[in-house]
Amino acid sequence: PAKLKGHIKRWNVHASEMSKKTLNPIRAIVDGMKLTPNPEKPMIALSIGDPTVFGNLPTDDKVLQAMKDAIDSQKYNGYAPSVGYQKSREAVANFYNRPVAPVEAKDVILTSGCSQAIELAISVLCNPGDNILVPCPGFSLYKTLAVSLGINVKLYDLLPERSWEVDLQDLESLIDDKTTCLVVNNPSNPCGSVYSKEHLQNILSVASKHCIPILADEIYGDMVFPGCSFHSLATLSRDVPILSCGGLAKRWLVPGWRMGWVLVHDRGDVFGTEVREGIVKLTQRILGACTIVQGALESILNDTPQEFYHRTISFIKSNSEICYSALSTVPGLTPIMPAGAMYLMVGIDMKHFPEFQNDVQFTECLVTEQSVFCLPATPFEYPNFFRIVVTVPEDMMVEACGRIREFCAHHYRPCSQDSNEIDQ
Amino acid sequence: PAKLKGHIKRWNVHASEMSKKTLNPIRAIVDGMKLTPNPEKPMIALSIGDPTVFGNLPTDDKVLQAMKDAIDSQKYNGYAPSVGYQKSREAVANFYNRPVAPVEAKDVILTSGCSQAIELAISVLCNPGDNILVPCPGFSLYKTLAVSLGINVKLYDLLPERSWEVDLQDLESLIDDKTTCLVVNNPSNPCGSVYSKEHLQNILSVASKHCIPILADEIYGDMVFPGCSFHSLATLSRDVPILSCGGLAKRWLVPGWRMGWVLVHDRGDVFGTEVREGIVKLTQRILGACTIVQGALESILNDTPQEFYHRTISFIKSNSEICYSALSTVPGLTPIMPAGAMYLMVGIDMKHFPEFQNDVQFTECLVTEQSVFCLPATPFEYPNFFRIVVTVPEDMMVEACGRIREFCAHHYRPCSQDSNEIDQ
Ligand SMILES: Cc1ncc(COP(=O)(O)O)c(C=O)c1O
Ligand SMILES: Cc1ncc(COP(=O)(O)O)c(C=O)c1O
Repeated sequence: PAKLKGHIKRWNVHASEMSKKTLNPIRAIVDGMKLTPNPEKPMIALSIGDPTVFGNLPTDDKVLQAMKDAIDSQKYNGYAPSVGYQKSREAVANFYNRPVAPVEAKDVILTSGCSQAIELAISVLCNPGDNILVPCPGFSLYKTLAVSLGINVKLYDLLPERSWEVDLQDLESLIDDKTTCLVVNNPSNPCGSVYSKEHLQNILSVASKHCIPILADEIYGDMVFPGCSFHSLATLSRDVPILSCGGLAKRWLVPGWRMGWVLVHDRGDVFGTEVREGIVKLTQRILGACTIVQGALESILNDTPQEFYHRTISFIKSNSEICYSALSTVPGLTPIMPAGAMYLMVGIDMKHFPEFQNDVQFTECLVTEQSVFCLPATPFEYPNFFRIVVTVPEDMMVEACGRIREFCAHHYRPCSQDSNEIDQ
Repeated sequence: PAKLKGHIKRWNVHASEMSKKTLNPIRAIVDGMKLTPNPEKPMIALSIGDPTVFGNLPTDDKVLQAMKDAIDSQKYNGYAPSVGYQKSREAVANFYNRPVAPVEAKDVILTSGCSQAIELAISVLCNPGDNILVPCPGFSLYKTLAVSLGINVKLYDLLPERSWEVDLQDLESLIDDKTTCLVVNNPSNPCGSVYSKEHLQNILSVASKHCIPILADEIYGDMVFPGCSFHSLATLSRDVPILSCGGLAKRWLVPGWRMGWVLVHDRGDVFGTEVREGIVKLTQRILGACTIVQGALESILNDTPQEFYHRTISFIKSNSEICYSALSTVPGLTPIMPAGAMYLMVGIDMKHFPEFQNDVQFTECLVTEQSVFCLPATPFEYPNFFRIVVTVPEDMMVEACGRIREFCAHHYRPCSQDSNEIDQ
């Protein structure tokens, strides 16, 4: 408050710099869009990264039962340790333990959603003025958190033509002596890509050569289509220290429950006690996850039938194929087939849609005319693409693709240079 | 990582400054104590600020039922808005709405425990280099959070001889042009004090005169002994902007569930949209409370029988009286009778206990000899006191007080100056 010596003071309260620097690009862009659906067509939102909204992908009954048992036991109403109950940490450790990447309870920190896991990882590894390497396109939270903490963000390119593999040369060129964390998101939001063992090894080589620890955002771990394999980064490296972030949100279809975790993989003992203790200290700020969910965790991880996971992923795969094949024959669009997660990215060949300046205008008009909302990819730092969430019911997906086709047919303009496309 | 041009790089990963600056004084002090109970006496912990540990204060069945209903409904598995479900915010607003201090849903932000509410309030009001005024003795989280964010802390004195009222002169003398927040905790942890209307008005006058917004930590709101009244700060001011922080932890006896809230009281429109929007932005970092608890909130607030609240507070009052009257006849100790919350502070007249240098050594030896653990008040910035949690079962309380008496009798040394005390 202004101090006016001898004068009456006036109220002069402002929001902090940190709050002003906490920018959510999805909100900033979506809130700025005119989203007025066509009253003649029911709205179909393909934009929301929440698999529960349409009710077609309920969580498993065992998961719900585990919660009710935790409540009935009355054992989980008090404070848990700030890093989580020992028994729950053990359950997560057992679930993810692999001979090539052992995890014990002491390596597990339970958090309020994967978001807090990411916040802890960035907060413990980076100081203001440091920089982190973040995928482009990528989930916006990394940048939101880093910028709010005064940490710089450098975007490394993913290559759509190579199923969103990392441009390793670009990645390596960005590293400097202020780089304190490499963020790898596999499987990816918004791409739905799943990296091969070889590609992950190449990423690890860059990290190893330059001695950069990795934040592996593996919240979509194991959500990969049949025939494809998920490799967690930690299973492929003996030297690179890795903070693997995950949680119940996606695979168990309960994002609202805010249950996440950090797994500390550090076989080379690079983090030492310092980083481990740093994480523990940070957990004491607000404590972590709801104790009822923590109490249910062991049963959720151990008793959910395999069939549940299979059903979810088969549905996502089938919906992705429907969407991909419908849109790949739409002139002007280039969908990229995913291999996991729950998203599909679609490139817009803007030169064929001269009415629209960018992905935001394109998707805005798609709402106005067809009542279909796809998230423009600008918030993922990737203009001229849009993201489709492939967890919506199949009939909605089919209907939405039909409307997107109609919209594109209506607005497509062949270019003089490639007039052969006219006949498509 | 160190960049050694032309050399092989070495791993050089450190914990961030923020993580190192996140200091939990309770952990720091308790972890440094040698807590070896006397094997002949079962341990009694009067140290843990968690009313659920002994099972004698279960939450109400309606509270548990509300949770199970929320799970069964399957309506609360997806993401909620980052500030909480509208319906749940409305329920909190209705619960706390008063004609003199109206609250609407838009004024309520749901958080992951009262701790996150406090974090949001401090983070939105203060920049690094600003200072906040914090009660002494006081709950340690204010300082932990502020220091980690580079915000300075100034302690204002509470006066034990005046039932822990604020030393208003001291308070006012600390204010400078970098003071951006006054923290008031009523009812208090660790004091158990409850301020009168008049005293709260005096505190508000200081804030009003110097134009300092208030963080009112009212997590123990309404937990006051029969005959005493709780006044929320916001009901007593028309001009001072107040962020009132609360939650389910204490009054509903479910601290592990991590359900808290901020109520924005700003009838003078000092915060304006800037601070409100600042809070909303900050909630988007990690999102807030578990959706199951949010879904249950309306029923928890509306259906918990009054009898439940009465039973809790009567029990705490009766235990406080037992403790107070037992310890007030112990030479060398000065218990201060609380009027609410769940704590009782006891002064140690150190000159009569020359064996011990301070409250930490005193309480350590009390464990060694009598297997009774009371939290030394040094973590609350108040040496030579200890805090007793008065939610333990009555027989434990009686037994513990007997052992404390025995311990003091054993170690008490009359001073030459006041040798008349020998006969007590
Ligand atoms: C890649 C990625 N990481 C992390 C998160 C956040 O997960 P949670 O909801 O558990 O905080 C999301 C959510 O969409 C995500 O897509
Ligand atoms: C005064 C005070 N404020 C806030 C809190 C934190 O409450 P919560 O557990 O809801 O984060 C406590 C917990 O002991 C407290 O004593």
